[in-house]
Amino acid sequence: MIEVTEFVYYADLAGIAVFAATGVLAAQGRQIDMFGVIVLAIVTALGGGTLRDLCLNAHPLIWIADPVLLWTAVIAALFTFAVCRYRPYPRRALLTLDAAGLALFAVAGAEKALSLGFTPTIAVVMAVVTGCAGGMIRDLMTVRIPGILRHDEFYATCALLGAIFYVSLHGIIESGLLALITIAIIFIVRMLAIVLELRLPVFVLAGMDHPPRLPRLLRRLFKKSKHPEE
Amino acid sequence: MIEVTEFVYYADLAGIAVFAATGVLAAQGRQIDMFGVIVLAIVTALGGGTLRDLCLNAHPLIWIADPVLLWTAVIAALFTFAVCRYRPYPRRALLTLDAAGLALFAVAGAEKALSLGFTPTIAVVMAVVTGCAGGMIRDLMTVRIPGILRHDEFYATCALLGAIFYVSLHGIIESGLLALITIAIIFIVRMLAIVLELRLPVFVLAGMDHPPRLPRLLRRLFKKSKHPEE
Amino acid sequence: MIEVTEFVYYADLAGIAVFAATGVLAAQGRQIDMFGVIVLAIVTALGGGTLRDLCLNAHPLIWIADPVLLWTAVIAALFTFAVCRYRPYPRRALLTLDAAGLALFAVAGAEKALSLGFTPTIAVVMAVVTGCAGGMIRDLMTVRIPGILRHDEFYATCALLGAIFYVSLHGIIESGLLALITIAIIFIVRMLAIVLELRLPVFVLAGMDHPPRLPRLLRRLFKKSKHPEE
Repeated sequence: MIEVTEFVYYADLAGIAVFAATGVLAAQGRQIDMFGVIVLAIVTALGGGTLRDLCLNAHPLIWIADPVLLWTAVIAALFTFAVCRYRPYPRRALLTLDAAGLALFAVAGAEKALSLGFTPTIAVVMAVVTGCAGGMIRDLMTVRIPGILRHDEFYATCALLGAIFYVSLHGIIESGLLALITIAIIFIVRMLAIVLELRLPVFVLAGMDHPPRLPRLLRRLFKKSKHPEE
Repeated sequence: MIEVTEFVYYADLAGIAVFAATGVLAAQGRQIDMFGVIVLAIVTALGGGTLRDLCLNAHPLIWIADPVLLWTAVIAALFTFAVCRYRPYPRRALLTLDAAGLALFAVAGAEKALSLGFTPTIAVVMAVVTGCAGGMIRDLMTVRIPGILRHDEFYATCALLGAIFYVSLHGIIESGLLALITIAIIFIVRMLAIVLELRLPVFVLAGMDHPPRLPRLLRRLFKKSKHPEE
Repeated sequence: MIEVTEFVYYADLAGIAVFAATGVLAAQGRQIDMFGVIVLAIVTALGGGTLRDLCLNAHPLIWIADPVLLWTAVIAALFTFAVCRYRPYPRRALLTLDAAGLALFAVAGAEKALSLGFTPTIAVVMAVVTGCAGGMIRDLMTVRIPGILRHDEFYATCALLGAIFYVSLHGIIESGLLALITIAIIFIVRMLAIVLELRLPVFVLAGMDHPPRLPRLLRRLFKKSKHPEE
């Protein structure tokens, strides 16, 4: 039992580090300095959990209760800042780790809401908020349309589907096992969506030209950034 | 008595649906997908009330206490998403409904602050926050200067004037009647401002060219979007 | 004793007025009207303290507890709005006053967190949030990359260093004296950083061209705006 909790804790720290690294990478081409990347890293890694806790009135905030989370984001940011100056970063690995982070954060968000006595609907919302809001704030702070709003490969949708699965079986399957299954499902759906280029339809107004869709994206995906410039 | 409360509740849901629709329409030309428009709809419809409740420490948040609000925004978003692909949307009707939504939300914000024992000044601030913050977050999330900051036709100013009227007469006129009068005033002032193109002066620095002002805007207003691109 | 508290209070109001003025000036060229500049002024002056209090769950918020803060921001905004139409504003004086405001706000943020029993780490974070978050929200609302993320002259870094100094000596040196020393340090480091053009290194990816750095910035600084357009 203690082992599962400990595993979840370290997995969480790993998720924070990966999210922090994506925050740093969003600074590219934006003339953002060393302090700025630390802010971006903290906001990306801890923004989702903070927004969730504010909405649920669950004080103290995660990073206030446990400053190790904060230090993890800071150290990951400085590491990324230093290394990426000299070496190309492993884009494919980062995308994979980011999917794992999303899965972990979404399940943690749903679990926290349920454990505080909120309804399944709110737990699903909080899963999406925990998994996606950090990245959304990161994009806004670097003046981009948030990636999760755009026709990305099922990013937030994975968190949504996983959270619905989780709250549906909560209380039926043993909590730790259910968490692991859900994490696996979110991760696998996200990776499949990337490989198969699954996307949701884009919003268009009647009379406007439909934007190009579903082209040679697989190639592009592993070459260029996940969050293309505006 | 119960009838007034029920009327207010359904009017509130209608306001949420209209604000959600404006959130969806802000996605045009931004490559935002089906999930993205739902997020924009929720944020536009419920962002103002959420920010108000966070500032007033009034937990649980409205949409946590009553998930019907959340579902209303989601269904309105999906409906708008589907219909606007195939039919031009009724811009003029939407502008009118949006004014009604602004009036309802502003009064609801002021009423909530007063009922929680806050001062009239704070009630006025919360009226503006409840009516306008959702649209502001929507604009930020689609990387636009918030419409309410720009020289729009008295949008936030209507909420401000209405709220001052409301708190001034609160306790003097019967609460339900006062709410209805205030809603009517905000709505009428907003519609008059649109028709007469009333605007506040724009900020300019000394020595800079004054930007063009008060031109052929009536025509433009009913032809193009209320929130022109940057 | 009362005299120090009173001095801090009036210094705080002065800081709010200066921050409000920078909020108004950010509206230049953005077609933002009189209401918009008031919103920007309030957000710039009170956004940092509000975010801090939300994170620390320290209700009521400063401007709800004391509406004088709100009125100070509004009056400063209207004054700036009116005067800057006709007279060039004193850029150099504003930069100096802004440095003083940053110092005051940072110390106030650290002090509040410590007095509520939070750890030194959280106090340092809150010093930076109190000093910098308002300006960051101002920049986001006018669709700019936040100035504090960019290679500005040690803006947030001054708050960070000052806060570390403050929490290190808290309990050792008498509180009022320590506050004054820290304020002086932050102010002096910031002014030195401006004059000497001290900057943190910018984030760049390996293989990308390094952006131009440390050029003729002193001249530019006193000629153009502190927050250059994108």
